[in-house]
Amino acid sequence: MQLPSSFTSKLASIFVERFSTAQAVRDHHGRDESPYPLMAPDGVVFARTNEEVSAVLRLCDQYEVPVIAFGAGTSLEGHLRPIHGGICLDLSQMNQVLDVSPNDFLVTVQCGVRRKQLNHEIKDLGLFFPVDPGADATIGGMCATRASGTNAVRYGTMRENILALTVVTSNGEIIKVGSRARKSSAGYDLTHVFIGSEGTLGIVTEITLRVYPLPEAISAATCQFPSIHEAIKAVTGIIQYGVPVARVEFVDEVAIAAINQYDKLSLKEVPTLFFEFHGSPAGVQEQAQIAEQISRDHQGEGFEWSIHPEDRARLWQARHNAYFACLQMQPGSRILNTDICVPISKLAKSIDAANEILQDSHLRSAILGHVGDGNFHALISIDPERPEDMVEAERLNSLIVQQALEVGGTCTGEHGVGIHKIQFMNAEHGPGAIELMHKIKDALDPKHILNPGKILPKD
Amino acid sequence: MQLPSSFTSKLASIFVERFSTAQAVRDHHGRDESPYPLMAPDGVVFARTNEEVSAVLRLCDQYEVPVIAFGAGTSLEGHLRPIHGGICLDLSQMNQVLDVSPNDFLVTVQCGVRRKQLNHEIKDLGLFFPVDPGADATIGGMCATRASGTNAVRYGTMRENILALTVVTSNGEIIKVGSRARKSSAGYDLTHVFIGSEGTLGIVTEITLRVYPLPEAISAATCQFPSIHEAIKAVTGIIQYGVPVARVEFVDEVAIAAINQYDKLSLKEVPTLFFEFHGSPAGVQEQAQIAEQISRDHQGEGFEWSIHPEDRARLWQARHNAYFACLQMQPGSRILNTDICVPISKLAKSIDAANEILQDSHLRSAILGHVGDGNFHALISIDPERPEDMVEAERLNSLIVQQALEVGGTCTGEHGVGIHKIQFMNAEHGPGAIELMHKIKDALDPKHILNPGKILPKD
Repeated sequence: MQLPSSFTSKLASIFVERFSTAQAVRDHHGRDESPYPLMAPDGVVFARTNEEVSAVLRLCDQYEVPVIAFGAGTSLEGHLRPIHGGICLDLSQMNQVLDVSPNDFLVTVQCGVRRKQLNHEIKDLGLFFPVDPGADATIGGMCATRASGTNAVRYGTMRENILALTVVTSNGEIIKVGSRARKSSAGYDLTHVFIGSEGTLGIVTEITLRVYPLPEAISAATCQFPSIHEAIKAVTGIIQYGVPVARVEFVDEVAIAAINQYDKLSLKEVPTLFFEFHGSPAGVQEQAQIAEQISRDHQGEGFEWSIHPEDRARLWQARHNAYFACLQMQPGSRILNTDICVPISKLAKSIDAANEILQDSHLRSAILGHVGDGNFHALISIDPERPEDMVEAERLNSLIVQQALEVGGTCTGEHGVGIHKIQFMNAEHGPGAIELMHKIKDALDPKHILNPGKILPKD
Repeated sequence: MQLPSSFTSKLASIFVERFSTAQAVRDHHGRDESPYPLMAPDGVVFARTNEEVSAVLRLCDQYEVPVIAFGAGTSLEGHLRPIHGGICLDLSQMNQVLDVSPNDFLVTVQCGVRRKQLNHEIKDLGLFFPVDPGADATIGGMCATRASGTNAVRYGTMRENILALTVVTSNGEIIKVGSRARKSSAGYDLTHVFIGSEGTLGIVTEITLRVYPLPEAISAATCQFPSIHEAIKAVTGIIQYGVPVARVEFVDEVAIAAINQYDKLSLKEVPTLFFEFHGSPAGVQEQAQIAEQISRDHQGEGFEWSIHPEDRARLWQARHNAYFACLQMQPGSRILNTDICVPISKLAKSIDAANEILQDSHLRSAILGHVGDGNFHALISIDPERPEDMVEAERLNSLIVQQALEVGGTCTGEHGVGIHKIQFMNAEHGPGAIELMHKIKDALDPKHILNPGKILPKD
């Protein structure tokens, strides 16, 4: 869209060099980690304070210009695409940790703080923030997509770990929602209205998070299985036994090969589980013994323990690199990343079904996942120059989602909807629930200026 | 209000003897556990299915008749008072456990199932549902008030333990929100929009809950302290140490005396903590040792362990009876029950301040609370025949709430707002957040037929 000239001149007068319509700056904000091609916003503004965000939104409201919040640009579902034009609101400079309260296990951060930065800043206090999507995303972005990661099975997702927010509403008002109390029954849960709303209901600028004491003892291990099915049955058994495993990640043989190449490791290229246990020394040992026994019952072998922090760090860094490792397997490729989550009792069946669907295709793919939550990803490689690859990948994703919905699951466990999964929203929620979501959108953003065209199918 | 005659005749034709305008039936639905006097609805309808609830709401929508959902009638804040007239929708006959999935640790219940009934039905499968408000409330009512109880410090509240709902909207549509997946990023979190909405946004008829394996080992204990302050410092220390205590309840000397009388016990009448630890035998022992050591550091003594299930049950029954025990101390009295929740680091200061406020009054009171969460109650006895008692109790509550809000807390940790705490909503949330709540109310219940006049201050 052509931005109104009085709109741009007002933005320029407030933000000076922090408002730009230069092509390079716009292009830099026109792409995320999804396979979609570049689509640049019409301008980019870099805000540093709540008041600046408010000023931007008041202008966008007045001129009815769409506005898309931008953190680290690591989203996977086309969340950042300005499909109705408008400006990008870059919040990466709002990167201060505002408060650390170790005695309450609470921190308050600005939205542009990245998860690694946060963990770095609180480590010396013996604290950590467990939610860890693969990318080094901003806390604001993680709030926007209701992100999770490898620790969610034990510590929950962004949904469980946010107590309060500062939000700038569509008309520029700065409000606070939630409180520092661990629980509250004081009215509507506005905090959870905003978590996962992908910048479509308000712009989250400050976040009060639960953090946790670094575990007294940590133990990590890998275990290898003859088949995906047996690996998943082992996970299911461990979860159903009630072992409070901190992390249990599945990586298939294709992804292990990619990791070996990317990280110069020599892991055995078979379906593998990565475990981590947190607790007291005795507690960790107890958990690990049970997990090992159940794994052996499912033909798991080569159970190797990493006691040393540096070994563990290498192992988990490798797991976190899996996405990028798979991307490197075919230079120039992009990845379509499925993200279903199903009840744990349906996981083995669901992952078998996904595997069968993927085997039938000519596209290369790998499976990995946060299987303790029932969540897994098929990383489907596509050549961005071949549109038919994207069509095929979408076909596979649709089939995988369909069987997840049939067993009571969700089309997206942690990546969000963006534009990419709008196609599944009616099937997952039904028209009545979608209508309610539209009502909430209309109530909180009547002019549809906040990241328009995302999440919700058109009426 | 005078119900329109064609409205009542339509209800009567559908529900026959399950619709009543008899005074006795209306009176029975016109009172809860709050100190408010009787206020009867204009009619009562007993629904048994989603479709029947839908039929009621379609009629209420058509005739613009207010409708108030009713479960066990145990609410404490005047939630059930028909201040704008209308009908009471009694859901206590929707009392079926619809599904138990032990492998997923999920159950689905109708809203009228009571918590003790649920635990009775799943006990033989080795499962339990931890959320336990004092009263034997319905799961629907607990969802409506975002209830918690003694286990919340370990297992969370209704907010953390509900995955999906069936809801009947204000115009009678039956919708499903959420899914059976442990986590999801698929659009707006409608589940949490309804949890804690006190029947003002929709009528929740079915609830999918997380349940937990009965702990392998349980250990419970009481510990006595020379002062409230030292008891609370001990709790704070234990929580800050990171002990995953399942329950830690504080009961002051007044409430202990009441319990002794009510339950024929002979507990020492001093400030007391009730502990419970869940886990493996070794884990429980470890937790208990740390808790005992920290308690001793704060002059805790008489640490007595209850290993036998029947001893434990008696102890916790006594704790659950504390409210009724205090009620019995002055025959004919009613109780105004404060419910603030503060960050754990502020708890000692907050409870000291509350104690000072209460000591200054002529009204009798006791303090007890779910102190691991930072939540406590002052049970203030009032004579319902003396209006000045109520005025004084409200004055005390206001002072207690005020200091909670000053330290980042909430006016209600678990009882909800009803009509009683509307006075604190602006101070707690600020006008901007309240305006957003109004927008959500208007969007989901445009005719304001759903429990009108609750939660939100008038514009």
